Amino acid sequence: MRIALDAMGGDEAPKPIILGGIQAVLSQPELQLVLVGDRAQMESHLNIDYPKDRVEIFHCTQTIDMHDSPLEAMRKKPDNSISRCWQLLAEKKVDAIVSAGNTGAMVGGGFKARKFLPKLRRPGIATLMPTANLSSNNPSSNNPLGSAGSTSSCVLIDAGANLDPKPIHLLQYGIMGRRYAQTVLQKENPTIGLLNVGEEASKGNELARKTYELFHNSPLADSFVGNVEGRDIHRGKCDVVVTDAFVGNVILKLSEGVFEFIMKRVAEEIVAPLPSDRNQAYQALQRIVHRYDYRTFGGAPLLGIDGICIICHGSSDQRAIQNALTVAGNLVRNHLNDKIVTDLALLPDISDED
Amino acid sequence: MRIALDAMGGDEAPKPIILGGIQAVLSQPELQLVLVGDRAQMESHLNIDYPKDRVEIFHCTQTIDMHDSPLEAMRKKPDNSISRCWQLLAEKKVDAIVSAGNTGAMVGGGFKARKFLPKLRRPGIATLMPTANLSSNNPSSNNPLGSAGSTSSCVLIDAGANLDPKPIHLLQYGIMGRRYAQTVLQKENPTIGLLNVGEEASKGNELARKTYELFHNSPLADSFVGNVEGRDIHRGKCDVVVTDAFVGNVILKLSEGVFEFIMKRVAEEIVAPLPSDRNQAYQALQRIVHRYDYRTFGGAPLLGIDGICIICHGSSDQRAIQNALTVAGNLVRNHLNDKIVTDLALLPDISDED
Repeated sequence: MRIALDAMGGDEAPKPIILGGIQAVLSQPELQLVLVGDRAQMESHLNIDYPKDRVEIFHCTQTIDMHDSPLEAMRKKPDNSISRCWQLLAEKKVDAIVSAGNTGAMVGGGFKARKFLPKLRRPGIATLMPTANLSSNNPSSNNPLGSAGSTSSCVLIDAGANLDPKPIHLLQYGIMGRRYAQTVLQKENPTIGLLNVGEEASKGNELARKTYELFHNSPLADSFVGNVEGRDIHRGKCDVVVTDAFVGNVILKLSEGVFEFIMKRVAEEIVAPLPSDRNQAYQALQRIVHRYDYRTFGGAPLLGIDGICIICHGSSDQRAIQNALTVAGNLVRNHLNDKIVTDLALLPDISDED
Repeated sequence: MRIALDAMGGDEAPKPIILGGIQAVLSQPELQLVLVGDRAQMESHLNIDYPKDRVEIFHCTQTIDMHDSPLEAMRKKPDNSISRCWQLLAEKKVDAIVSAGNTGAMVGGGFKARKFLPKLRRPGIATLMPTANLSSNNPSSNNPLGSAGSTSSCVLIDAGANLDPKPIHLLQYGIMGRRYAQTVLQKENPTIGLLNVGEEASKGNELARKTYELFHNSPLADSFVGNVEGRDIHRGKCDVVVTDAFVGNVILKLSEGVFEFIMKRVAEEIVAPLPSDRNQAYQALQRIVHRYDYRTFGGAPLLGIDGICIICHGSSDQRAIQNALTVAGNLVRNHLNDKIVTDLALLPDISDED
């Protein structure tokens, strides 16, 4: 298996990216790693011991920064590391690409390359959200993301790719999210819920109501639990939560904001005033903060691409990059895309206008 | 001042509703209360001491239940307490109405009555969200909602009325939210943010991009801080957060879900294992849970109506109802609607199609 890693993408790139990549090579015997970026910069971090026959360098001269406007930067910097990763994937020279760089550029690169799976309309980003242990999810000690402690997870899709989707796009996100959940949550029959403002079929805006109809009459109907509400996500009411990228983005960032807000209250009002047990309580608080730190997660796949594409948080450290390469390897090994293609073929033909 | 209270609406109605109403009469000397509902049921809870000259009964025979389909129920039960409240407001027999009944019926009643403020396109629900003490918000000890402890608040609008809004609706929500924030947050110049997926003007779905343009070129431009993201809400980055009802509903319910999720982790992993200080820590945890219990808040106004309309959570207790009547009284006394009408008049004429 061959994976391209964007060595130039990430807040602290290239050092933690390269070290995470080397760790992944050491832990995955069949992994062939292609480091994409500036050769001189990369080599200055490669004066370490590693299996040189399994690490290649793909030299390119440009980098898209985190604050670059994605489309403009891709046009002005044609030799940037993200576009080169996409090129390697499009030419089938690698099975997967991984980047902690500019998310907009990663998504834009995928839309530009247009190497979508057959029948797939729009790629979507899937991400994991922590949930209470209500469902029979396996604990994430078995989870390739390996960072959620003893809690379970659900898949949220679309978390950021498609801001004005059609109902058929959301139906296809359900299909892809379900297959992704099978692999990462290790569940045989993941359930799918449509995020909405109430449980009844008639609830919601126009997009939600039309999407409900589509799911209800689709080959996925048996896995579809209907509408779920905002409070159901963290309760683990279903394994896959389908929504548009606007709402998905709000969910991710709001969860982060509420978590931060409450943990500050807990630190100030519960932990700080304790006369005897303050240290113990503080350590327990730190463990919770660390477990749900969205930045340490191992990346989110852009699903629907012919090939595997993992987008990591800009602040990914060495371990997060290693995790992302493990996830990428698992998705390739599990033939995720073959399963998605089989499911997509079962869908009736629906135009974007429907 | 005359306020109609839907005595039949609420999970435990009519008892806590009526008792909350009587408390409000006792604490607001100028309040004339109209209890709307079944006379016999209401009178069975009125065998207490109260100023009888300031409490009237408006008898009606029907009630819309929490799980009734709002529009169907309003058609089949024409003599229901919610429709009667709206009738009293439309006929200017009361200045305000308050209900903890079926939210859909309350909103539907407002849309049906169509007694909107001049130039107002669609009413919207404003609600308060707790925020960190970043801004100079007054502490909510001065807050008519009186339940947010030492934290500050921001106004979220629309929290549930208008699921498929146009940009002009969201601009008008900004106008109304700002005037509401002046009253409840006691700030002279509240700032307005548009909820979006990133800070740049070009970000977002079509609705968000068009709405940004409208705000940017409106008489509100000086109060408009631009786009805010999900994580900014609880950080208190602005005083008024404008969004559509779909996203607003997700925000409210997701906040509730994340809060519940985290507080369980805190109870299990921080508080329960403490050897000496467990009781103290548990009491501090209970105080936080109580403070942010969304059910104890004093209700959310449906803004844009000619008259004041407050919608309360179904689980509102006596104190929540009393709070809601206090809020309603404050909004009437502060001439909230006159201020909104003045602001709306400054807007250029924009059709719904724009």
